[in-house]
Amino acid sequence: MLDPVGSTVGRYPLEGIKVLDFTRVLAGPYCTMILADLGAEVIKVEHPEGGDDARGFGPFQQGKSAYFMSVNRGKKSITVNLKTPEGREIIRNLVQRVDVVVENFRPGAMDRLGLGAKDLLALNGRLIYAASSGFGQTGPWAEKAAYDMIVQGAGGIMSITGQPDGPPTRVGVSIGDLTAGLFTAIGIVTALYSRRLTGQGQVVDISMLDGQVALLENAIARYAVTGEIPEPLGGRHPSITPFENFATADGWIIVAAGNDQLWARLCKAMGREDLIENPLFATNKGRTENYIALRPHLVEAMARRTTAEWMDILEAAGVPCGPINNIAEVVNHPQVRARNMIVEVDDPVAGKLPMAGNPIKLSSMPDPTSRPAAPDLGQHTVEVLTGMLGLSEQRIWELQKQGVL
Amino acid sequence: MLDPVGSTVGRYPLEGIKVLDFTRVLAGPYCTMILADLGAEVIKVEHPEGGDDARGFGPFQQGKSAYFMSVNRGKKSITVNLKTPEGREIIRNLVQRVDVVVENFRPGAMDRLGLGAKDLLALNGRLIYAASSGFGQTGPWAEKAAYDMIVQGAGGIMSITGQPDGPPTRVGVSIGDLTAGLFTAIGIVTALYSRRLTGQGQVVDISMLDGQVALLENAIARYAVTGEIPEPLGGRHPSITPFENFATADGWIIVAAGNDQLWARLCKAMGREDLIENPLFATNKGRTENYIALRPHLVEAMARRTTAEWMDILEAAGVPCGPINNIAEVVNHPQVRARNMIVEVDDPVAGKLPMAGNPIKLSSMPDPTSRPAAPDLGQHTVEVLTGMLGLSEQRIWELQKQGVL
Repeated sequence: MLDPVGSTVGRYPLEGIKVLDFTRVLAGPYCTMILADLGAEVIKVEHPEGGDDARGFGPFQQGKSAYFMSVNRGKKSITVNLKTPEGREIIRNLVQRVDVVVENFRPGAMDRLGLGAKDLLALNGRLIYAASSGFGQTGPWAEKAAYDMIVQGAGGIMSITGQPDGPPTRVGVSIGDLTAGLFTAIGIVTALYSRRLTGQGQVVDISMLDGQVALLENAIARYAVTGEIPEPLGGRHPSITPFENFATADGWIIVAAGNDQLWARLCKAMGREDLIENPLFATNKGRTENYIALRPHLVEAMARRTTAEWMDILEAAGVPCGPINNIAEVVNHPQVRARNMIVEVDDPVAGKLPMAGNPIKLSSMPDPTSRPAAPDLGQHTVEVLTGMLGLSEQRIWELQKQGVL
Repeated sequence: MLDPVGSTVGRYPLEGIKVLDFTRVLAGPYCTMILADLGAEVIKVEHPEGGDDARGFGPFQQGKSAYFMSVNRGKKSITVNLKTPEGREIIRNLVQRVDVVVENFRPGAMDRLGLGAKDLLALNGRLIYAASSGFGQTGPWAEKAAYDMIVQGAGGIMSITGQPDGPPTRVGVSIGDLTAGLFTAIGIVTALYSRRLTGQGQVVDISMLDGQVALLENAIARYAVTGEIPEPLGGRHPSITPFENFATADGWIIVAAGNDQLWARLCKAMGREDLIENPLFATNKGRTENYIALRPHLVEAMARRTTAEWMDILEAAGVPCGPINNIAEVVNHPQVRARNMIVEVDDPVAGKLPMAGNPIKLSSMPDPTSRPAAPDLGQHTVEVLTGMLGLSEQRIWELQKQGVL
């Protein structure tokens, strides 16, 4: 049913959708990268002096930020100084010709520029105005500054990530930003769908903190029922046992024996049939409640062989298991490659850069192995302002000289 | 622009969309929970004996799984035994009357039942068939069993989460499942949008592993540019410094001084103006490269006061900072409450249960403070099969006796 990987056949579902993108750094750009991957024309609006802060974040390849390039592929860039009346007038004109505005400023910033949701929806009633912020557009914390790290701390995920009795641990990716980007993308596409029925635009209000709360499915349920505050469990699942990583003779292995049948198979594979008979460990509930008694048996067994040996034994026994891959192993993983999840951009200055592909595979949509590079600052100012607003190149040059563009 | 929290005014954007939901446990149910929150009618199809495995996962409230209740709120449940010809016939009839099918079986399972994407799209060309699986519908690993834990290990996130030189650490939530659920939701809503233009359904193919790769924005970029394999950094950001948690006199605090101006303010707040002048630490690049020299100064300073004292001092100085909240603090957080991110269901047996609200806030959509409870197994079998297929209650009773329903 699916076209082969690397296909360029089909059409992109968001073809024809124009997005005016005021976002910086990560949550917003990650959202608009997804929209661009789905075919939208994303026009990134940047300040003429330096643009998106992420252009200055390492690592750099030939002086260009690989971080910026990774999350801004396939977008256009125009420079507009929003502090100038002429700049704001250009934005108001563009807003009448686009479908979506996305911004991740602190709440109130766009209103103070006269470019808030109310202002822009008055200009274009079909507009979808999406705001992604640290704490949302409403509530007592709305105007506080937020970064991923602060939201990871506020949202509870750090309190349940880490080793038992160890320090709180940051999730190794910017999960606060990324999750907000995903929820914003769902909100925007949903609003686009809705607009086809109602003809009306609307406001999408996504908070990084809200997004973190929405990830706490299991932890909130545990707290609500037991009153106990969940704590970090290292590599272990809180309510399925055994479901964790163990040290082997030469590394690590993950064992996921999620039900009683798999537990019995694991015991046989370890040569510990006696454990199957132990009533303490007969059910998942028992194994979880008696974890402290159970764990030493598993630790002792798993340390006796190498990761590769255990993988062979457990796979033959039908016990779900797996390695802990590092980033090099992920990038070169045969399944990751077969799924076209490492794509390439060819930047005119930085050269070729591999990056994560698009995980949203649609049967009607192409899934090319390369993506257009991220734009240089203002690379599309002339193209967009002549094409969409009919400004002359002479006028654009004047506005650039005045610091408007 | 936004209605007040708890509003029940407006319409749900996916009203009228019918979803036939074959999913179990987490990735799929999390996706269809989002669709239900956005107004879709989600009909969960479960095996007559026991249904979704998650009904048996703790913690339990009055014998009912809080975990199951949390991710299945607002859905309907019908029982159908897919191993019987009559059961499959009922599914084929339902498929002709729904918009979306979602499943998270191992690839091939639905095909072997004659209910694969090809079969169902032949019955209903407008159908959106969404499959969420561990490794995707294609590639050499397609048919391998996957659980969140295995995907966290395979996808690289565990290799960069944890303390430096410590063991690999699981992200404290089931990020492999949850991310796949989010990407599946984006794919489905995008396909619904596309269908309004083309009249055609299509296949959405989401892999948990792909989703993990898509979260590695920064890590892949670092590896691609430097060739160095990223390692766990505890609470620290890999390329912004200082951007981490420090032990205080009585707990922890997160300090996020992401640029040179904030760095200078932090130094003043610590009474360490001398550090501002130190050329090693003058830029973010310098602070990140000379982290080992920098860290002791910060550790020493932050240990001198309590978390509350540092919060006051740093907030007054305009340095972004924050606490590390535990789950109880998150659930009772004034901003989380103000954003309606803890909603309640009132289950007829289990009673009231708080759970995470919907983070996708749309100005045209209600955001009620309570949600309908999750269904009992087969609670809506009669309603759905009489309403959608015109089966008589007598016929349904016969099919139940035969083990079909």
